[in-house]
Amino acid sequence: VSPAALEEQRIGLLGGTGDQGRGLARRFGLAGLQVSVGSRDPERAERVAAELRASAPQARIDGLPNAAVAEQCDLVVVAVPWDGHATLLRELAGRLSGRLVVDCVNPLTFDERGPRALPVPEGSAAEQAAALLPDSTVVAAFHHVSAVLLLDPAVDAIDCDVLVLGDDRSATDRVQALAELIPGVRGIFGGRLRNAAQVEALTANLLAINRRHRAHAGIRVTGL
Amino acid sequence: VSPAALEEQRIGLLGGTGDQGRGLARRFGLAGLQVSVGSRDPERAERVAAELRASAPQARIDGLPNAAVAEQCDLVVVAVPWDGHATLLRELAGRLSGRLVVDCVNPLTFDERGPRALPVPEGSAAEQAAALLPDSTVVAAFHHVSAVLLLDPAVDAIDCDVLVLGDDRSATDRVQALAELIPGVRGIFGGRLRNAAQVEALTANLLAINRRHRAHAGIRVTGL
Repeated sequence: VSPAALEEQRIGLLGGTGDQGRGLARRFGLAGLQVSVGSRDPERAERVAAELRASAPQARIDGLPNAAVAEQCDLVVVAVPWDGHATLLRELAGRLSGRLVVDCVNPLTFDERGPRALPVPEGSAAEQAAALLPDSTVVAAFHHVSAVLLLDPAVDAIDCDVLVLGDDRSATDRVQALAELIPGVRGIFGGRLRNAAQVEALTANLLAINRRHRAHAGIRVTGL
Repeated sequence: VSPAALEEQRIGLLGGTGDQGRGLARRFGLAGLQVSVGSRDPERAERVAAELRASAPQARIDGLPNAAVAEQCDLVVVAVPWDGHATLLRELAGRLSGRLVVDCVNPLTFDERGPRALPVPEGSAAEQAAALLPDSTVVAAFHHVSAVLLLDPAVDAIDCDVLVLGDDRSATDRVQALAELIPGVRGIFGGRLRNAAQVEALTANLLAINRRHRAHAGIRVTGL
């Protein structure tokens, strides 16, 4: 997949008004893709899109209801909070039929002892998406890339790899190429969807590291 | 904890005749620690220790039954295969009382689709160790460092961080310092023991990466 081919794609972000969604929307917009930020609330979607355009005037970013994002975009990133994940995907399953769906949701919670991974009946958020979207191709990616760094205009390149998991080689290849549109990032195949749980849950460890070091930690794969 | 203080310690490896145990024994021996390689079979323990001494003549490495390792070493690394983990720790619980126990076991299996993380009733191998060893201090570490690289005499430094997890700060500090005796390695606090499962399971993803790239993958934490 060439970057040029990717730039002709339209990418949508479900729950794109949260930190992770806005951060990815901004970087994909800067890379030249046409980006639709989705929200349950169409006014909020348009307001966030306008803010992102203001900070990156060359970027093509619009705001739409989540349902329109699912219908109009070939490649859809799921960036909703974990507690709305199943409900949203169940609602949009028909509209997401035939789409490449990239799940970046981390099922986590926080208590007085810090972050903790939540158990997921299907194994992982990505496997839950695959179960709810039998007519879509589901890939898991973008779990560890810091929203703070994605949104920071002073940060040109991000020192982080994106692990890309899935059972369809052409889909994971396409998402690896998508990840590499973010300067500094390598997209690395990280295994099948059945090994997504620990990649999602590892975000709890990165948050524990952030707390100890006042950092925005990511990971790199070494030895390749 | 200064490296000098560490070098005065005696470190033992339960199941130290497997690849991970031999690899860690070799590197700790090269760093100047007094190392005991443990096995159920005392002759096998002594034979592996002799092989390690032959490849690193300056290293102080002996071979002992697992029970003697637990009794004689202050710091004990658990490097047995997952299917013998609970049985061995239950047997040695009394002898491990008061010890710092470092669990590096990855509960994994393999089938025709590749590696896969196994569910663990206690959450993780490290939490199982903590449950079986109420009078020991349990830390999880050394899951991602490649045994092939640890054992390779042509590899001087290993490009990999070791995530160290635990609930006792002085214990995790001590294991971070231990990890940093391996040239190239940084020991990084990776969170509480309740977040160990995903660190153990991530080894399945690294094995999937190894298979794709014919590599010995590790990870580095970025952004610190």
